[in-house]
Amino acid sequence: MKIISNALELKQELREQNGTIGYVPTMGALHEGHIALIKEARKENKVVVVSIFVNPTQFLAGEDLNRYPRRDEADKKICELAGVDFLFMPHAEELYFDDEVKIAAPNVRGYVLEGATRPGHFSGVLRVVMKLLNIVNPTNAYFGKKDAQQLNLIELMVKQFFMDVNIVPIDTVRDSDGLALSSRNAYLSKEQRQDALKIPKSLYRASQMVSRGILDVESIKENIVDVLEPLEIAYVEILNREFEVIESVEIGKSVILVEALVGNTRLLDNVWL
Amino acid sequence: MKIISNALELKQELREQNGTIGYVPTMGALHEGHIALIKEARKENKVVVVSIFVNPTQFLAGEDLNRYPRRDEADKKICELAGVDFLFMPHAEELYFDDEVKIAAPNVRGYVLEGATRPGHFSGVLRVVMKLLNIVNPTNAYFGKKDAQQLNLIELMVKQFFMDVNIVPIDTVRDSDGLALSSRNAYLSKEQRQDALKIPKSLYRASQMVSRGILDVESIKENIVDVLEPLEIAYVEILNREFEVIESVEIGKSVILVEALVGNTRLLDNVWL
Repeated sequence: MKIISNALELKQELREQNGTIGYVPTMGALHEGHIALIKEARKENKVVVVSIFVNPTQFLAGEDLNRYPRRDEADKKICELAGVDFLFMPHAEELYFDDEVKIAAPNVRGYVLEGATRPGHFSGVLRVVMKLLNIVNPTNAYFGKKDAQQLNLIELMVKQFFMDVNIVPIDTVRDSDGLALSSRNAYLSKEQRQDALKIPKSLYRASQMVSRGILDVESIKENIVDVLEPLEIAYVEILNREFEVIESVEIGKSVILVEALVGNTRLLDNVWL
Repeated sequence: MKIISNALELKQELREQNGTIGYVPTMGALHEGHIALIKEARKENKVVVVSIFVNPTQFLAGEDLNRYPRRDEADKKICELAGVDFLFMPHAEELYFDDEVKIAAPNVRGYVLEGATRPGHFSGVLRVVMKLLNIVNPTNAYFGKKDAQQLNLIELMVKQFFMDVNIVPIDTVRDSDGLALSSRNAYLSKEQRQDALKIPKSLYRASQMVSRGILDVESIKENIVDVLEPLEIAYVEILNREFEVIESVEIGKSVILVEALVGNTRLLDNVWL
């Protein structure tokens, strides 16, 4: 495995490769969720590239940029063991310049849900993802379904800017207690972790309602809110796959999204129905 | 010559080509300035692509989008005769979608000069240029030096987003009377055209001053303003090639930019020193 910090050096190395390139962009602190992405990339491509970059432009003022977990040495080992060919670990100065051209998230879909609680967050995400995709120029790029809105916006950007990459969504990986894996779970105390389990539980209950034929969005949302009690809820939404509001769940075409605060930690989760 | 209106069809056609692709994006109403770009592309590449698209997002409210000159049939003949292989003439619906991810011009360099008189103009230019470059995926893309600020911003975008294209600047073509060619010259009456000649004259005088060793920016600017009298001046600036303010001309590294109104027509011109 080659570890590269310079963007143009990586670009040059990858240009010399033959065959498909699979790419997994991450912010490090790798867990089984990331490993699932890397495994899928390894299975489907000749060359596998992982990047670790805690992107400053997607953190708002006062957010956890400085305390975001960093575990570079462990991450390198994980990548090595997972069969990664190139690990890209750029410094911010490699990716960002003075007085930049910027990406602006869509006026509607970029400022609802996660974008409403974190206005500007997705502009930063799209900005770094476009840079990274242009550097790596992968055949396939792998993103977790857990960040469903992020995934939707990246798919939009790729389509609207005619980018040559296939975006591959990968199912959320959960701990044995049901909590969706997230680098931010490290912030939770033992008690908070118990509280956090209300989130997957609420989604599980919602899925059961749908299986029983209850498709009315308002009823399902009420049930989710009941289960989440007394957590502070950021949002509970049921949307179609284009992230538009619906009144009734259509199986195979809907997604339920939840974000709640456990202590100071924002946790999000979703289920694709 | 193939004429194509569908973006994905063009992308597919060009993917099947071998050898270098030279690309000239235009808004049509082709004149000798465009033909110079196409000739250079023809000389340096295996395949030559020209696009004609009057991009709505770069016109501000109240600007000349609806009366912008359109001469599709003449343009097709010109391209055919110039040896163009693919002429891309998309409709706006081919390039733009609902609730889009957008490009934002740089806060400083996108909002001075032309960007000050036309705030938001360059965001629209960069947005369409990024789309077009991603569709065509050219080896070389040709832009006129006449739109110097546009050229500078496109070069910035290509660098900052690690895009795989070589941007080739081409010298301004002038009519025999010295006026820089522009599709907007068609708006000028015979008398206005005489007035407009003050613009190239002011730049010629400035170049002469520099040749005589007068490098002080303020003195040169004063002289330009005198020559332009009584035209309404939008701006007169002398900058380095990074579009930063300088106090003294450095030969080989400076550019003088002028924009003035002749009647209602904004005319811009520049000289690279």
